[in-house]
Amino acid sequence: MASIVRLFLDHPLAPAQSVPLSQAQAHYLFGVMRLSVGAELRVFNGQSGEWRAEVELAGKRRGVLRVVESTRAQQDPPDVWLLFAPLKKARTDFIVEKAVELGAARICPVQTQFTNAERVRQDRLQAHAVEAAEQCGGTFVPPVEELQRLDRVLADWPADRLLMFCDESLAARSSVLSSLLTDGGEGAGRVDDAGKVEEGRKDRGDTPGPWAILIGPEGGFSEAERAHLSDLPFTRAVSLGPRILRADTAAVAALTLWQSIYGDWR
Amino acid sequence: MASIVRLFLDHPLAPAQSVPLSQAQAHYLFGVMRLSVGAELRVFNGQSGEWRAEVELAGKRRGVLRVVESTRAQQDPPDVWLLFAPLKKARTDFIVEKAVELGAARICPVQTQFTNAERVRQDRLQAHAVEAAEQCGGTFVPPVEELQRLDRVLADWPADRLLMFCDESLAARSSVLSSLLTDGGEGAGRVDDAGKVEEGRKDRGDTPGPWAILIGPEGGFSEAERAHLSDLPFTRAVSLGPRILRADTAAVAALTLWQSIYGDWR
Repeated sequence: MASIVRLFLDHPLAPAQSVPLSQAQAHYLFGVMRLSVGAELRVFNGQSGEWRAEVELAGKRRGVLRVVESTRAQQDPPDVWLLFAPLKKARTDFIVEKAVELGAARICPVQTQFTNAERVRQDRLQAHAVEAAEQCGGTFVPPVEELQRLDRVLADWPADRLLMFCDESLAARSSVLSSLLTDGGEGAGRVDDAGKVEEGRKDRGDTPGPWAILIGPEGGFSEAERAHLSDLPFTRAVSLGPRILRADTAAVAALTLWQSIYGDWR
Repeated sequence: MASIVRLFLDHPLAPAQSVPLSQAQAHYLFGVMRLSVGAELRVFNGQSGEWRAEVELAGKRRGVLRVVESTRAQQDPPDVWLLFAPLKKARTDFIVEKAVELGAARICPVQTQFTNAERVRQDRLQAHAVEAAEQCGGTFVPPVEELQRLDRVLADWPADRLLMFCDESLAARSSVLSSLLTDGGEGAGRVDDAGKVEEGRKDRGDTPGPWAILIGPEGGFSEAERAHLSDLPFTRAVSLGPRILRADTAAVAALTLWQSIYGDWR
């Protein structure tokens, strides 16, 4: 399967627009991918959809592309953030890649009581998100935030944004599907009675209110964190089944369920 | 977070049972994990739940465990197989790990027209599945089959097992949730009308019929494969949202949705 090169450009895109390349971009296109003058590729800037472009100038350390025509409209994901406690490098990279593919609008590393990481390389994770969007055909690149302490994030939480937190201690007790379906994303109170599923479903609008998903570290949340999360008016505790999931698996599973119930997989 | 060692043993487990260790197991427990005589661990054999065991003899290349008491009942996953086209090593390993965590009953690598792999190391993947079960606290280890050609697998398909195949060409067109919910897993025909969701939900029994999930290679299915799959009476085409997912992401997402609708996440 031959596949066409896709490149993120932090530059306005319009017909006949010339776009100068950075040294790294020139190296990638001409050194790694072996494109030459006249070669075609797809470009996007995260805001203006996808465009067909051609190589106008190709040098060792520089080059210029010319934008030809629009090939796809901009497609932004629904308004769901992913908050997660950083893991080891490979699994953190994995979470960022999957969050881009699954359509998270913002990626927020948070430090919990049992998080091992003291810091994350935000610039590296952002570059990883760009690469994931290039690979998966996306036109949107979620911003990756700097690492913040979870307690501070919760203290400044926007009142209208619901927060689904994946609580291991609920395993085998509550159904994620019914507990999410009962909550129309309108900020209504938690409903545990599975019998109210139908009612909740009717409430779902075409555009769910803003949401976020919180995934804890491998060691889980502390008792104090769990109690605090449960007390907050905007949180919704959810179980992800009877088996213990690794944090990276939980991130993919939670985003999948959210997209299928509230998001653009409906 | 101190965590207790979990070890898979291919041996009967019962109170006061002595279990000899292989050289590799002895090396892992005494060389890597630094356990000594009297140390406690958890063991399982994939059939008899989880047991507390103690080190009775510890040598450089050998050792003996003594089983003490049962700590958890056996928990088998629902009857859902995962069929996938092998990818590069790291992503294939990832799919096996996630399939174990998410509760697949059987893992079947299949060779499609666009699959690059000519062979897989079945023994290595099976060992990876064992390790994943040890890590995620599971008591069941799904068997990993040898690589088989998809057309042969389909030719010998058991008539009562439904096969969900994730079809990129459906992206943005049909909702996975509604199309799955409409099909009670009873072998009923496909229903595309979202209005029939409620009806389908009522039909769901506590034990869904046998299912399988098929994930194509990075290059997708060929036109011929897609047409053949669509024609078969036991297949159900499903969309996994408007973005293109990598095959490993699709495997996790599809298993998540299946478990939440038919499986043991309900």
